[in-house]
This record gives sequence, structure tokens and C-alpha cells, in this order.
Amino acid sequence: MTELSVNGADAVLLRRLRLLSVVDALRRTGPQPLTALARQTGLSRPIVQTLADELTEIGWVAAVAPAEPNGVGRPARAFRFRAEAGSVAGLDIGAHAITALVADLDGEVRGRSRITVSPSTPAAERLASAKATLTEACTAAGLEPARLSQLGVASTGVIEHSGRVALSVALPGWTGIDIPAAFADTVRCPVVAENDGRAAALAERWRGAGRDVEDMVYIHAGFRTGNGVFVGGRLLRGHTGAAGEIGALPSSGWAEAPTHLLGFSGLDEEVRLEQTAEFVFSRARAGDPTALVATERFVRALAGGIAALVLTFDPELVVFGGGISRSADLVLDRLTAELERDCIRVPPVVASSLDAEWVVLGAVRVALDAIEARYFATGISEPLAPPPIAA
Amino acid sequence: MTELSVNGADAVLLRRLRLLSVVDALRRTGPQPLTALARQTGLSRPIVQTLADELTEIGWVAAVAPAEPNGVGRPARAFRFRAEAGSVAGLDIGAHAITALVADLDGEVRGRSRITVSPSTPAAERLASAKATLTEACTAAGLEPARLSQLGVASTGVIEHSGRVALSVALPGWTGIDIPAAFADTVRCPVVAENDGRAAALAERWRGAGRDVEDMVYIHAGFRTGNGVFVGGRLLRGHTGAAGEIGALPSSGWAEAPTHLLGFSGLDEEVRLEQTAEFVFSRARAGDPTALVATERFVRALAGGIAALVLTFDPELVVFGGGISRSADLVLDRLTAELERDCIRVPPVVASSLDAEWVVLGAVRVALDAIEARYFATGISEPLAPPPIAA
Repeated sequence: MTELSVNGADAVLLRRLRLLSVVDALRRTGPQPLTALARQTGLSRPIVQTLADELTEIGWVAAVAPAEPNGVGRPARAFRFRAEAGSVAGLDIGAHAITALVADLDGEVRGRSRITVSPSTPAAERLASAKATLTEACTAAGLEPARLSQLGVASTGVIEHSGRVALSVALPGWTGIDIPAAFADTVRCPVVAENDGRAAALAERWRGAGRDVEDMVYIHAGFRTGNGVFVGGRLLRGHTGAAGEIGALPSSGWAEAPTHLLGFSGLDEEVRLEQTAEFVFSRARAGDPTALVATERFVRALAGGIAALVLTFDPELVVFGGGISRSADLVLDRLTAELERDCIRVPPVVASSLDAEWVVLGAVRVALDAIEARYFATGISEPLAPPPIAA
Repeated sequence: MTELSVNGADAVLLRRLRLLSVVDALRRTGPQPLTALARQTGLSRPIVQTLADELTEIGWVAAVAPAEPNGVGRPARAFRFRAEAGSVAGLDIGAHAITALVADLDGEVRGRSRITVSPSTPAAERLASAKATLTEACTAAGLEPARLSQLGVASTGVIEHSGRVALSVALPGWTGIDIPAAFADTVRCPVVAENDGRAAALAERWRGAGRDVEDMVYIHAGFRTGNGVFVGGRLLRGHTGAAGEIGALPSSGWAEAPTHLLGFSGLDEEVRLEQTAEFVFSRARAGDPTALVATERFVRALAGGIAALVLTFDPELVVFGGGISRSADLVLDRLTAELERDCIRVPPVVASSLDAEWVVLGAVRVALDAIEARYFATGISEPLAPPPIAA
């Protein structure tokens, strides 16, 4: 049997797969002439032409002038994916700052904005600042917030799948906030919310040191320590969204870790809390023995929880990110030595290759993933099994 | 566009999907007449009839006499999945015993065998005993080992995806054994190997307390403590197969836990190591205060590592299995109280509903999963996205 006539459900499925395969080919490999598209999708040239025309009409695809004419006759028709068909925004609502990025559907940043807030800023004021920052980033991208296709919000705390903050100890009044509902007066698009450590992990796997890594433990080390874990390419979120909270366990050492830096005896009084780490590390780099001891104790404390994650997940790679990763030169060797003492198998431990904006970039990725699931998922995740044969 | 004519790759894909959808319908809902099959698969009756005939010819399906004639005329033709089209075996190679089960493709057990070994049995002898046990179970099922379609082996230690034992501290000479290669002289089918704690978790999710649970932490508590974790319905194995080794961390308490039972002062000298737990628990049940203290210390020690897993995974359910789960009446409340002290969200903690053979049943499931992937996977894992529309 090599030919079938199909109708009904089969025909709808096939047509959808074909439309998506054309969109997918253009998104992956950029603008292409019809002949190349036909080769890549395995469809005939006339069918690809019909599909491309249909996609052009609904706005996913646009005709482009071919780079070079193909010798004789009229130039080959070529098409591109219209990344400008939608816009997404990512928002990082932190203790000290709020950052917003607006991007197109390829993730190219088109506008940004950032403001400073205080850890003690009340929730209502923090939300109002977040909306103002988002609006500014949209303005910079030449867009009304109401025209966004998707908003991704990253923030500290345990965030449920629905986007409600189940628990936040870092931000006053933050527990109980329903993030999507809070933005309903500013945007008209769907809103997804994600824990900041997990958002940073998404950024790292998208554009940082974790590219193409299926099983990754990402550590987000600032004054607080967060994490995000990928299992088989999927971010671990947990049944209610509360995964990744091993830091709550005293034996993880994560709650205790900053005290080793804060307790550094040579610390000038005027050094602000969030600069303490950098200050201690700069002294350690200069050879100050007390600062070196503080650094070692800090790393040893962090290593407890990281060893638990390495033993639990057996990852391909550990990526060390967040503000502290700027001092990775002092941390990585010590951390690896601690892990080698505690773990059965120690994967490579590398520093983040992003140097800031981990969380807000992750919020953009959260928004793009939502777009991906809504418009571009085919539901076919792996090759078909071989045809059944009797055992 | 409501009708398409397809050929080539599309036709092969469609035909395969249709064959699999018929096999799948029969496997899920049992023997069915053609009309019901047509309804369930959404295909026309003549197409289903052609597919059923083809599946009968290659051996996946057999015609059955319908339960009742349908009133007038000849009885409706009905079909069933031929679970006897293949046989799988599960083998549990443990420190104290080796158990083998032979099952059909529905997982119905057709033969079994078990022998006792010693923790000090050398590796070569343990393997020879395992092969003898496997052969006995096959004989009980009326089958040569060479006729098996798939063998699943579960054993203690860190087992790589390839089936090589990367590390085993419990069995002498076991580190470095290549399990599939070791069985090449006994079976002709593919062999997969799995860690015993993970195998037990598979059994629990298949036929125990974890049915239909997507995110589950399973604790396999015997004198050694193992575990298996499901994330989104998939068993966590790690990049090299070494996931789930949090027990290696002293702060997990798992290595220390048995000492609280072994140290029980009222212990008779002749009590064998593997009966110690049962002995202490029976005294605790009788109200012996020293035994109660030992029990409490044992549970508190276990709770350290379990709390780390609960905080890390945020599971829907924790299942407590293995030999110690026979004393779940003494363990569960105490364990839950410990978790409530340490964790942000405590899921229900329940006892295994299997009362033995966790590991060997899991080995059968490992074998059936391999069969599933080889013959029955469609590659379509979720519904198709809606057709693309411009944002």
C-alpha cells in the first residue's frame, strides 16, 4: 500500500502538519526559496507553494526578494518567517530592581527598561513599578502593552502553575499575589509566571552555557541561592510548582552560606549588603587570608545542597550562574573539589556564560515557550516506531 | 481543504498510525467487535476490517468468537490482542535472593522461580544462579529462554544505561559487570538492566499505590534505602544512569538509619541481620520503650533524605515501599511529622500496596517498557496544536 486517499480528521491532521513543517523549516533555517523548502519538508514544490501562500495570507510568513537571481528567467520565490507577527515581554520583579525586555518571536530584544526598588517596597507599589517598567519597555519597542502576544513574569518565591505566589519570604506582602490577575489591567495577552531561579535556568539553557544540554543542574547564586533543573530537556517544576526548594533544608547549607561572607572581619561598615560578596572576593583575590577562609566556608556551605542535587539528578552539566558567578574564578575549583568528595560521579561544573539579566531573559523564554506551545507544537516528539512485526 | 491524496512518506505514516491505533484499542479495552473498533479508532468499518486482517496475519491480533450473537444473521466478527505473541522475563538479582518472573505481553505472570543466595556469593556464582533461576521460570511458563522477546534485570548499584554496573558496594565483584553481555549465552533477546530501587518504583506505579501518579517519589526501604522518582510520568535515570544516589550523602541519614535498629539493646543474639527491623518493630508495637526510641531514630534518619527529595521534586505522592513498608503502621505518621517540620509542602505519604516482589515485578515492567518502545510507540505524545493564526 503506497497511496491512500484521506479525508476528515486525517486530512485536517495532515494539512496542519504540513503548514507547521513549512513554518518550522523557515524558523530553523531562515529565509529560503521554495525549492529548498520542498527539499527540507519532503513535500512537493506545488504543495509547498500553496502552503506558503496560505501562511502568507494569515501572517506567519512573508515573501522576500531572493539574495541572487537564479541565472535565467525570473528569480526564485523565497519566504521568511515573520518574527514580527507577535511580540512578547519578559519581566523580572526582584528585591532590588525590576527589569523588562520586549522581544519578537525570534527572541530578538526590541525594547528594555529597568528601575531600582527597595527590598522593603510594599507589594502594591512593587506591582505598580513593574507595570510602569513594562510599559516603558513596550514604548521603547514602539508598542502598546495591550498589543503583546504573551507576558512572562519571573519573581522570587514558590510560584504555583496558575501564577499565584504560594510563598515568598524575600518580598513583603508578596505571598498570595496572583501575578496574571495583577497584570490584567495592563496587558490583554496570557500571562505566565515562573520562579526566578528556574527562569534563570531557562535563560542559561537558551543562550548561555547550557545550550543543547538535556540534563542540567543550574545554580543561581546571589545572596540567596536558587536553582533550576532540566530533566530530559524539560524544566522540573513539581506537582504544584514548588520544586527546587532544597535550600529550605538546613543541611543544604544555602541559608547559612551568606553569613560566611557577612561575617568577614575586614568588612568596611559602608559596604552595602549586596556588594559584600564582591568585596570579600576582591580581598580574597588580593591574597587576604581571612577573606580566603570566608570564601572557602561560603563555597563549602553551598556545596552541601549542590552535592544533593548532583547525586539526585546525575546531570550532564552543572552551571553556576547569578551574581556570584562573576567570581567563578574563586568558586569553581573549590566547588568541584567539594563535590568530588561527596558525589559518586561529578559532571563538569562551569560558570554561566551570561553576565547579567539571567532572570529577565528567562522570563522572555517563559513567554516564548508559551507561544511555542500555543502555535507551533506538532505533538510529534519522536520518530515513529518501526511497523509492528510478530515477536 | 477537506480531502487530500497522499503517497510516499505520508502514506506509510498513516498506515502505521492506523495499524497501531487498532492494536492500541484492543490492548486497552480488550476483545472487541469490528463496529466498536471502528468507533474507537475513528476509522471506517471496511478500513478496520482490512487492518485487523493484516494484524491477524502478522500475529498481533486473533479473531475471537463474539460473546453473544447479534440477533439476526451471522455473529459480528471480533478480535483480541494476542498477549501470547511474545514473552518477557524479569529478574531480580539481590544480595539474599534471586527471583525470576516470566510474563506475557499483558504482564500476566506465566512462570516464576526463586532461590536463596548469600550476600557473600561471588559474582560468577551469582550470575550462574541467576541464569538457572531464569531458566526455571521459563520452564514453568513452558518456554525456552531463547524464545523470550525481552529480558529485564534489576540489581543493586549504579547501573549505566548500557546495563553495565558502574558501582556496587553491596555485592562482591559486581562493579564492572556488563549485565546484557553476561546473559548473551542464555537468551537471544535484548536485555535491559535497571537499579533495584528504580525497578521497584516502576512496579509501584504499574500495579501499586502509585498508579496514574505523574510526579512520585518512591522510597524503597529495606536494610539499605533506595528510591525512584517519576517526573511527568517518566522515571528519572540521570545522564549516565546514576541518578537517585542521595543516600550517599551523610546528611541524608540513609547510611546511618539501620544502625538505630542494629543498636537496639533488647536484640537477641541469634536474630539475623535481615530480620532485625521486623524484630525491633514488633517490640515497638508491644510498647517496649527502647524499641520505640530505636524506631523513632530510624525514621528521623530516613526523613533527612526524604525531605530533600520532597523539597527538590514537589511530588504529588510519596510511596513508602520495600521490606520496611510492612511496618508502615509504625513509620508513616512519624515520617509525615518529620517532613512537616522540614518541608514547604508535604504531599500524601502512603505505604506501598504491593507486599513483596517489588523489584522483580519492576524488572518485568522494564522489559515490557522496552517492548512498548520497540513495537507500540506512535511517537505522538500529545494533541496537535490548533492551526496557526496570526497574533
